[in-house]
Parts: sequence; C-alpha cells; structure tokens
Amino acid sequence: MSQNKFTFGLWTVGNPGRDPFGEPVRQPMTPVQIVHLLAEVGAMGVNFHDNDLVPITATPAERDQIVKDFKKALHDTGLKVPMATTNLFTDPAFKDGAFTSNDAKVRAYALQKTMQSMDLGYDLGARIYVMWGGREGVESDATKNPADAMKRMRDAVNFLCEYARDQKYDYTFALEAKPNEPRGDIYLPTTGAMLGFIATLAHPEMVGVNPEVAHEHMAGLNFLHAIAQAWDAGKLFHIDLNDQAFGRYDQDFRFGANSLKQNFFVVKFLEDVGYQGSRHFDAHAYRTEDVEGVKAFARGCMRTYDLMVERAKKWNADPEITQILSDLARSDEPDWAGDTYSPEKGKALKAKTYDRIALGARGLAYERLDQLTIEILMGAR
Amino acid sequence: MSQNKFTFGLWTVGNPGRDPFGEPVRQPMTPVQIVHLLAEVGAMGVNFHDNDLVPITATPAERDQIVKDFKKALHDTGLKVPMATTNLFTDPAFKDGAFTSNDAKVRAYALQKTMQSMDLGYDLGARIYVMWGGREGVESDATKNPADAMKRMRDAVNFLCEYARDQKYDYTFALEAKPNEPRGDIYLPTTGAMLGFIATLAHPEMVGVNPEVAHEHMAGLNFLHAIAQAWDAGKLFHIDLNDQAFGRYDQDFRFGANSLKQNFFVVKFLEDVGYQGSRHFDAHAYRTEDVEGVKAFARGCMRTYDLMVERAKKWNADPEITQILSDLARSDEPDWAGDTYSPEKGKALKAKTYDRIALGARGLAYERLDQLTIEILMGAR
Amino acid sequence: MSQNKFTFGLWTVGNPGRDPFGEPVRQPMTPVQIVHLLAEVGAMGVNFHDNDLVPITATPAERDQIVKDFKKALHDTGLKVPMATTNLFTDPAFKDGAFTSNDAKVRAYALQKTMQSMDLGYDLGARIYVMWGGREGVESDATKNPADAMKRMRDAVNFLCEYARDQKYDYTFALEAKPNEPRGDIYLPTTGAMLGFIATLAHPEMVGVNPEVAHEHMAGLNFLHAIAQAWDAGKLFHIDLNDQAFGRYDQDFRFGANSLKQNFFVVKFLEDVGYQGSRHFDAHAYRTEDVEGVKAFARGCMRTYDLMVERAKKWNADPEITQILSDLARSDEPDWAGDTYSPEKGKALKAKTYDRIALGARGLAYERLDQLTIEILMGAR
Amino acid sequence: MSQNKFTFGLWTVGNPGRDPFGEPVRQPMTPVQIVHLLAEVGAMGVNFHDNDLVPITATPAERDQIVKDFKKALHDTGLKVPMATTNLFTDPAFKDGAFTSNDAKVRAYALQKTMQSMDLGYDLGARIYVMWGGREGVESDATKNPADAMKRMRDAVNFLCEYARDQKYDYTFALEAKPNEPRGDIYLPTTGAMLGFIATLAHPEMVGVNPEVAHEHMAGLNFLHAIAQAWDAGKLFHIDLNDQAFGRYDQDFRFGANSLKQNFFVVKFLEDVGYQGSRHFDAHAYRTEDVEGVKAFARGCMRTYDLMVERAKKWNADPEITQILSDLARSDEPDWAGDTYSPEKGKALKAKTYDRIALGARGLAYERLDQLTIEILMGAR
Repeated sequence: MSQNKFTFGLWTVGNPGRDPFGEPVRQPMTPVQIVHLLAEVGAMGVNFHDNDLVPITATPAERDQIVKDFKKALHDTGLKVPMATTNLFTDPAFKDGAFTSNDAKVRAYALQKTMQSMDLGYDLGARIYVMWGGREGVESDATKNPADAMKRMRDAVNFLCEYARDQKYDYTFALEAKPNEPRGDIYLPTTGAMLGFIATLAHPEMVGVNPEVAHEHMAGLNFLHAIAQAWDAGKLFHIDLNDQAFGRYDQDFRFGANSLKQNFFVVKFLEDVGYQGSRHFDAHAYRTEDVEGVKAFARGCMRTYDLMVERAKKWNADPEITQILSDLARSDEPDWAGDTYSPEKGKALKAKTYDRIALGARGLAYERLDQLTIEILMGAR
Repeated sequence: MSQNKFTFGLWTVGNPGRDPFGEPVRQPMTPVQIVHLLAEVGAMGVNFHDNDLVPITATPAERDQIVKDFKKALHDTGLKVPMATTNLFTDPAFKDGAFTSNDAKVRAYALQKTMQSMDLGYDLGARIYVMWGGREGVESDATKNPADAMKRMRDAVNFLCEYARDQKYDYTFALEAKPNEPRGDIYLPTTGAMLGFIATLAHPEMVGVNPEVAHEHMAGLNFLHAIAQAWDAGKLFHIDLNDQAFGRYDQDFRFGANSLKQNFFVVKFLEDVGYQGSRHFDAHAYRTEDVEGVKAFARGCMRTYDLMVERAKKWNADPEITQILSDLARSDEPDWAGDTYSPEKGKALKAKTYDRIALGARGLAYERLDQLTIEILMGAR
Repeated sequence: MSQNKFTFGLWTVGNPGRDPFGEPVRQPMTPVQIVHLLAEVGAMGVNFHDNDLVPITATPAERDQIVKDFKKALHDTGLKVPMATTNLFTDPAFKDGAFTSNDAKVRAYALQKTMQSMDLGYDLGARIYVMWGGREGVESDATKNPADAMKRMRDAVNFLCEYARDQKYDYTFALEAKPNEPRGDIYLPTTGAMLGFIATLAHPEMVGVNPEVAHEHMAGLNFLHAIAQAWDAGKLFHIDLNDQAFGRYDQDFRFGANSLKQNFFVVKFLEDVGYQGSRHFDAHAYRTEDVEGVKAFARGCMRTYDLMVERAKKWNADPEITQILSDLARSDEPDWAGDTYSPEKGKALKAKTYDRIALGARGLAYERLDQLTIEILMGAR
Repeated sequence: MSQNKFTFGLWTVGNPGRDPFGEPVRQPMTPVQIVHLLAEVGAMGVNFHDNDLVPITATPAERDQIVKDFKKALHDTGLKVPMATTNLFTDPAFKDGAFTSNDAKVRAYALQKTMQSMDLGYDLGARIYVMWGGREGVESDATKNPADAMKRMRDAVNFLCEYARDQKYDYTFALEAKPNEPRGDIYLPTTGAMLGFIATLAHPEMVGVNPEVAHEHMAGLNFLHAIAQAWDAGKLFHIDLNDQAFGRYDQDFRFGANSLKQNFFVVKFLEDVGYQGSRHFDAHAYRTEDVEGVKAFARGCMRTYDLMVERAKKWNADPEITQILSDLARSDEPDWAGDTYSPEKGKALKAKTYDRIALGARGLAYERLDQLTIEILMGAR
C-alpha cells in the first residue's frame, strides 16, 4: 500500500502469552518499548485501553510520568494514536458486567472510568473511541433480566455521547461485539446486533461499529458480510483484523493465518470501497514466541494484508473473471425494486409473465469463478 | 394458558420427512387435512407459504378451488390464519437468491410472487407477513458483491412496503434471519443483523423481526437475548418456536426437546413482558413417525410450553429467589446513566470515589440462583 | 444415592476465578482448607494435579510439610484420593507440548515430572492416574509433524506404563481428550480418538479413558455416546462431570447447569450399567461467587446428580415408556448378526425377501417417548 | 502428479442439486454418462453406492443391463472402480438406522443389502469397501440404548467380514464417520471413534477408516490430525477429499474451496508419507451450476490438489524453513521415551535436573514458520 494505515494495540504485541491454563511466557514490555517495537516493524499507529498505558493502581504522579514518556515515544517514532478504549473487564469489580452490572455502584464506576479514559485518549490524539463490553453478559439467564440489560447499555452509551458533546470531543464511538468469552453469553453478540442497537440510541449518528474477524468467526459467521452491512449503513468506523477458526475460543491469530480466502475478500472489499480507516490488527503472537517471534508476527500481519491487496487488483483485472461478471450482470429486465414505486408499476409487474423454468435452468459459472479466485490467491494465475 | 395462542405452519405437521439423504417417510396431507389435524390436537391457528397452500404449478381454477376448500376448513374448525409468507427458495429459479439474485429477472419474479402471496395471505386473514430469504446468500463471495446484496434487499423490502400501503393492507412485516443452510452463508444472518437492516429502510415502522430458536442456535447464540433485543426495540412482531442443538444443521425439533433451561427462560420472558403474538411452532416430527407421531409431536410442543409457563410462575413466586433478586437490586447509588445528563452531573460523577476492591469482593449468589432454577424446572421445589 | 461416590478436584472448588480477560476474584485456599470445604459440603473424595498440592517451586522440605498436612486433613475428614494427575500445561516449559514437544529436553522433563507425580499420587492412595495433554497440539501444522506427535505420545505412555509396572504400582491410566484450548488444535481430540490410540499401545490393558462432558461438547459431540463407546470397550476408567454449551470455550459449568436432558441420559446410563467409579466433578463456580457461592456450586452438582438418579428410576418404571420400548423390541426375526456366521446362514439371509415399504411405513412413537422423558425430567409425571 | 489417482463418486458429479429447501436443479445423468464425463475431465476412477448404479426398484433384468452398460463404459474410457459402498440411508426402511435399527428385520435387510452390494462392487473391480452409517444414530437418546447400538454395529461388521472371507473377497473395509446429519447424533462420530471401534472387532486387520474432510470439519476438528492418527495406526485405507467450513451442515464443497491452508497440509502429508490410495473427491457442484459448471467443479478439485503438491515440494525445499526445522530438532538430550524402558533408565531420568525456566524461555520461530507457509501457499515466495 502506498499509504501505510497499519495500527496495533499496545495489548497485542505487548501480550505476554498468559492463557487460562498457562502462565505468561514473555517479559512484559513498557508502552514506550512497544511503541519503538512497532516503529521498528513499520506500523503507522498504536491504540490502547486506559490500563494498557496507565495501570489501574497508578497514582496521579505515576500517571503523568507514563503519559509524558509515551508522548515522547510517539514523537520520537512518528507513530499516531487513532483509537482508544476502556478496560471494563480485567478488574474483579466488573465480574458481573460494567454498564449492565446488577450493582448500581459498578455501573457508576464503569461510566466514570470510561469518562476518564476518554479524556486520556483524546489528549493523545484518538478520535475513534471503541467500546467492547466483554463482561456485559451472563452465565445464567436467571441472574439478569435481558430487557434491563438493553436499557442499561443504552443509557450508558447515551450518557457517554452526551459527555463527549459536553467536552467538545469530536469522537466517534465504535461498538465491538463478541458472542461469548469471557462471559458465557455476551449481550449484543454480533456486529449486526450492534447495528440494531445503535438505531435505538439518542445520537445514532455518533455511533458505529468495530467488527472483529475473530469475534464473528466465534459464531461461525461470514465476516465480509458483517462489514458489508456496516459499510452499507455508513457505520464501519473501525475494524479489528486478525484470524481464527470458526466456533473456537478467542484465538486472535496473525491476520490471514487461518482463513486465507475469507480474509482475501475482506481486504478486497475494504480496498474496493475505499475504506479510509486504520487497518488495525487485534491479534497476538503464539505462546511459543520470544520477542523476535513477536516482530515476525507483526510483520506477517502487514505482509499478508499487502499481498492480498495485490491479489485483489489481479482479480479485478482478470479477463476471464471480468467476462463472467459481465455475463452475470447483463439483462434487459428493468430494476423494478430500485425504481420508485408507483401503483402503475406495481400493476405492471404483477401483469408480467416470467418463465421460471428458464430462470432455473441457467448455469452461472460460479464454480469456475471461485476456482479462478483460488488460483489468483495461490499465485497460480 | 387461559388464552390459546398456539399456531403451526402447514409445512410443519405436513412435513413428509424428506431430508438431504432420504426420501419422504410420510404420505403428503392436503391443507384441509392439516387444518383438521391441527384442530384435533388443539391449535388456534395455521400459517403458510403461498406454495404450501397453492402449488406453484396450479392453474387459476385449481387455485380458486384450493382456497375455497381451505376457507371452509378454517370455518369448520375455527382456526385462524395469523401469518403468511412466500416460498422463495424451493424452485430452481431461486437457486442464487430471490431479492438478491444477480439476475434482474429473478429479482422481478420474486417481487411479483411476493405481491401475489401477500394478496393471498391477506384474503385469508393474515396480518403478519414473514420474509425468510433462505436463498439470499452465497457459497463463494466471488459470486456476489455483498454491498450490492444489501442494496437489493433493501430495495425489495421498500418496494413491498409501498405495495402494502398502495393496497391498504395493514400488514406488518417480520424478517426472519438464518445464518446458513440452504446457502453456505446467508446475508443478514441473525435477528440482530435484521434489526440493524430495518433501521436503513424507508418505512422502518412497518417492519420487525421473526426470530427462530433453531436459527440463532445454529450460530451458537443465546435466543433469549435475541428476542429481548427485539422486544426492547419494539420489533418482536412474530416468533418461531422449536429447538435444536447449538451449531447444527436446521433440526427444527419439537419445542423444548433439546434445550430445556434455555427455552424455559424464553417462555418466562414472553409471559413476563406480556407478548401478545402467536406462539408459533416452526418444527416437525422425527422421520421415524407416522401420523400419530405427528400428533404427539404437536401436542408435545404445546404441553411443554404450558408446563414452562407454570414453572415461570413458580419461579417468580419463590421466596428464596425473590430474596436473592431483591438483595441484588438494593443500592443507595443513583442511576447516573438513567438520568438526563448535565455537565454538573458529569462533573459530580467524575469527582466520586469508588472502592473497586470492595465492588469486586461481593458474592452474588448466582450459583444458588441458577440451581434454584434447575430445581424448579425439574419440579423438585 | 445410597453410596456417596462424589469427588472434586483441588482445582475445582479451589479455582480463584481467573480467566483470559480477568484477574482472580477469590482468595486462594490451601489444600487443607479445600479438603475441609469438601467435607463440609458432603463429598467423598478429592483429586489433584501434582502442582495443585505441591507448588512447582516448593523445596523438598516444603513439599514434605504440605503432604503431611494434607494427609492429616484427609484423615480428619475421612476424604479419599481416588485419582491423581500431572500438570503439564501451566509452566512455560510446556508451551509447545510436553510428551509431543519438539524439544527432547522438554519431553524428558515431562516424563520425569509425571514419574514424580505418580509417586506422590500413589502415596496418597490414588489408583487411577489421569493424563490430560492440554499442550499436546499446535497452532499451526507447519510446526510439528502429526505422525511424529503420535509416535512421541505413544512412546511416552508406554514408558510410563513400564514405570508403573517397575514400581509395582497397580495404577490404571485414564486418558482425557479435549479438542482445543489452550492449543489451537490438540492431538487425539475426542474420547473416541483416545480409544483408537490405546489400541496402538504396548499395554493397552492398563489404559482407558477419562471422558469429560465439556470437552466433547466443545466439538458438539454427544457425550452419552462417547461414554457408551468407552463402556462397551471396557475402557471407562474415570469420568469428568460438568456442563457446557456446544461449541464453546471450556466453560466447566456446574453439573446439569446447561444441558439437562443430555446429562440426564448420562446419569441414567452410569446407573443402569452399574458404573463403579467416582462421580468426579471437574467444574468451577462462576466468577461472580465468593466462598459461599463455591459451596452452593458444589452442593448443586451433587444435588442435580441425585435428582437425575431418581428421575432415571421413574423413567425405567413408567408403564407407558415400558410399553413403547417393549413394542419396539418385539420381533420374530432372528438376530442374524448376533449369531455366529456360517456360509449356510449367509446364503439363507441372502435368499430371504424383505418388504422394505412395510419396514419404512411403521411409526415408532419416538416423539411420544421423548416427550415422556421431558415430562419425567420436569417432574410433571 | 505423475500418477493420476483421482476418483469421484457417481453421486458427486451426478448430484442433481436437491437440498432440504430446494428441488433438483440439474437433469439426472445415467451412470454411463457420468463415466464419460469423468473421463473427459481426466479422472482415473469412479466409485458408487449400490443404488447409484442400480436403482433400488430395478428388476434383475434391468440390473443386468445396467451393469453391462456400465462395464462397457468403463472399458471404453479406461476408468477403474477402486471402491464401492452401500446406500443404507435413502430408503424409509432405514429411517431409524440400518445395522443399529431397533427393528431386527431392518437390521437383517441392511445386512442382506450390503452382501449384495459387496457382490456387485467386487464384480466391478472394487477392493475397498466403504461403510457409512448415516442413519446409525438418534434424535433422542430415549429411543435407543447406545450400548446396544455399539454391540449391533460390531456384530454387523463382524458378520460382513466373515461374509467377505467366506466369498474369498480380498476386500478391505473402510469405516466413514460423520458426527450428525442426517441423524441428530450419529454413533461413532469421528475418525478417532472409528479407530477405537475397530479395536473391538473380531478381524481388526480387515478394517480401517475412510476419513472425510467435511465430516471432521462439522465437529470443528483438525482433519490432518485425524488422518495422521489413522496413518500412524496403519488404518488409512481410503480418503474423502472435499471442503467445508467448521461447524456447518454437510457442504461438500470443491476440494480447497474453503480451507486452503488446512488442505495444503493434508496434501503435503499424503504426499510426504507416500499414501498409495485413491485421491477420492466426495463433493458436488454448487446448485447454481449446469453441466459445464459440474465439469469446472471436477477439474477444480484436481487442479487445486496438483497445485498443492507443487507447493508442498517448495515448502520441503525452502532453505529458511529447512533451517528453522533443523534448529528445532537439534538436541543433545537422549530420546528417553523412544528407548526401551529399564529400571536403570527410569532411575537415571528421575535423577536428572532440568532448567524449566530455560526451557520456557526459548523462542521457537513458529510465527515465521507459519508466515513462510502462507507465502509459499500464495505463490509469493
């Protein structure tokens, strides 16, 4: 890509490799070290949760020093901070949710923490604010009324939109869905559900989505379709690129490491429609890796993205593909649904005769089209 | 239940038991026979796709006779037709989709077929019109631009809303999502995605959703959460009750046959919030069954629903449960997010101090609450 | 149950509630405290991984003191230790596997650690030794030859069988499968795969399986069928009871908390066939719980098991069920396959005529049978 | 490939495109037409179920004519029949299973049908006999005792082994697992379970497995691991190549159409170990296709396999990959488990000291290794 748009979270290359059954395998890096590592591998920017940068236990003085050091590292490297977000999941206070907790004190604390984190992110340059509610859910539906949860979630997002307006922050918010893990079931589990939820907000124009490959794949859903719906609705405000097998726990693999064809179409879509946001990687290196392996991981994410951009151009220019697509599009039938409806058109359409047998008999050459895609992706054409 | 609200589709008890690997195991029944069977087992109503009632090959005269006979059966039995829908999936003409087909003629034919089916349904008393786009998808994303698909889908629904207004039909539309099968990936795969899509329509007020247990379970999603979101948005216009294991093909089991606890909470929610729509069963009997088995299947759906209503009442009245819930709700903290935001409140909240350690230390008694639910459900309390 | 056979692992009620996105929510308990808690709630025994009891960093003197204290607690409470196992997953040394690691030193260390753990377990009374290879897998098949992995795994189990024979330990080994998590893909992912693997060992008679509900459910597999295959093969040496939704990460819910009907058939099978092993619960309390919640969790596991035993008796005695089952079994056809084959029988069978239409037409009353099951399970019959 | 080993089933390219929600989209082809189509696209062989070739309703005279015509087509084209199998799932007689049916008459009929089909297959040259028990399962565990099912299944396979011996057929049997669909849950659901089952047979040496990509993917299992276990056990007698997404219904896509990297490792394994059996494709064309699309589908299966063979050679020869692999394998530690055990060796191993911190600190370069794989697969290296 001529324009480098690649970003990583502090929590991604900084991930020490702890998992539910194992201790960390890598030494923690400071935010400053991470910024320099990202600069070394060639990233454009870095994003963070409040507590990735400032530990939840930091004193105000510690906080100020950390921020100062981080700003210097950004200045020294030229890295940007396009996006910030809140950690509302690590601390035991959020064990039953943050905005949807049954405990009014927890809900208040979550709001307060987000306001402070919005201040921090804005100060560092972020203009996209992501909300991921990993604890907003239940293990048992005996424990929380889901209609209450919807209301609490909406109230919280509305409140924080008002706070942004009050502070004159020109943030846009991007809601990130995940179906489960860490909670048994998380509310608003898919990008689609988030789009439905946004329509119920007081300021829907301020709020979009942050779809993540791995999160849709957990539910076995087609990620391209999720971002296409978001794009169609004008709501694709951010994106989390990574990879994982359908139906698995949150693997967060290197971009392209599992689902080559699926991610090829994601890249092709983003490039074809002219998506202008960051290509943000929310992934981490295998636990088998040391810091050199972490760099290989980060470079691999970007390299595979770039390779797919190149293959997408080939796909668009391939004469046999172009021919199949133009054959498919050729028609002398008007686009009835695309036109403005009128009673006359309604009557006219009802009066027409269609030969359903002929419509069903036409071969569409989709096997060939898909095989051509495979061959382009494999560099065999 | 004092008020019988149970409905079945013609295609449910009439299902002959064909599957991808096997031939039909039961003789087909006529619509009139099905109506009488449903009356015998005690249903309130019957729903249909156009071609469940009128074969796609019927002449106008055959159609008129079929409708006449069907109306007589409804009259004789007292059954109602609350809902109708279109079959846009069985005929080979729709092999690549109906509203989203790449072929403009197929899109036109699909619109026309739906208009005719809306006429038929309205004439028979239906006031809910369901749209299920089982062919609106792809096996390969090489074959269709998903942004085009979104636009075509919206155009079609907008067109049909205008047709309903033009005809003075007081229909409400209910969109039914399914993630995959028969297509590899179906667009707008979840109830949440449909809610997001509705927000982009010209007449969103005319359109809601028809969530189905089995379809959300295919994606491993919590069905209660899906209907709660729809209810919260004022969009729960219809419901398809059945059952199936997470992550499976479309099993359409008898209501409650697989997921007792999950469906218990569904019933409790519908009853607690006062849902007024049909309790529609979209399921079918095992292939091992003859017509007596089909009746046992239908009776089982209703019996289990009724048992769950009774258990939901017990749950709501249980003193230990009531105590746990009231302990959870007790708080002296104001509901900050629920109030109207003001700069003063924003400042006040930011100035407060919360003891996150204390918030995290509180035990919530959810294991006991869930165990009490199990015991009530098992009739052991 | 007249005979209390309930056991828990130290790691279950002792689980502090850490997860991939959150810090521990409960204070750690010592093994002695856990033994007393288990005695208080009414368990029969306690099982452990070496490092549940003796930290990996313990000195020999610390180890001796810990074991002494633990033995005293067992003596004071009367609890037994039926099973022990090795932790080959927490330490970073095992990040790429233990028995199947690419590093010969890691493989050697894993063997050594298991030998020491076998000594410890035997000393404390365990006669079942479980092997769970949570790290025996890969994130990428580029990294390990799966045929090598099979060989390494077999060599390790053979070596440890020889060690047990050498030491005159009358252990039986029980292999525990899990399809994924913590590794992307774990070798020998299901109970069935373990049974296949056992057939390739030098001493297959010493080795059986330890199936776990949650692990089979991760792959969407029927757990009853897994244990029935193991039982049929004489290999059901131990069992891990818990619960979780199909296709999810390792939820390890309270027994019966998710899949009532499925677990009912598991209990019914264990009781009907006269399984004599421990009813071991490998589960943990929700993160929302304090120590009282942990006790409620443990009591709930046992209570639900007992309730299911009672319902299984009702099922077996129900006259309508008995009638359906005896109708199904009635036949005048000989059991051709059950008899010894002879050329004459082969010829005779080939010469017979079967009326396949009639065979297919018979209704089997399975909907009624399943509905009766639901009603018995709900205490409604 | 220098040696063409590609085979297709009659039911694959002959699939008319019926699905649970749709009518056939292609005209049926005769077996003779299919043989000629396969010859045209360049296949080596053709496999069949008895009723793919001879309809279940055929008279003996019709049967003889069909077989004669088929033999002529084989002769004219040079195609071979390496494998045959029985259809024990389409006819309603098998709606509750074949070998495991509760009805002794159905079990007898299934045996008889298989004997006849074995005769037919043998006559046409098949030496591998596949058994796929798509109906051997349940929708409800109330309906069949799974221990009975195991016994009935074993009795049937034992009986048929004896029949083969009696007839002097030098068949090997290959058991094909599938976790579900058409039945709710099928017994012996994975390749691993089949390997476990084989160990309980009277003639285990006659019986191996026929793993299928799509069937393991339905359970989200790693197909490479399944075939590696089978190969390790000497039981990889046949293979069904196709593709599909994890956790989906039986999609049976063109080989390589979904999971490029996963299938690359499958091809690499088969070629590296020197698997000599057919490369059999058990897949079918999309429903959007006409007969030209069916040919494109068949050619695509073979083309992608061949491309992967070529990439596997590149992978094996890549200097950077070779270097990483040899670094991983280098060690001065003896292979303790690989050696014969002796008490002295046991003692010696226990006496050694390992530095677990150092073992855990080593970086393994797996991210780089996997990225190199991606680049080779994409033809970018």
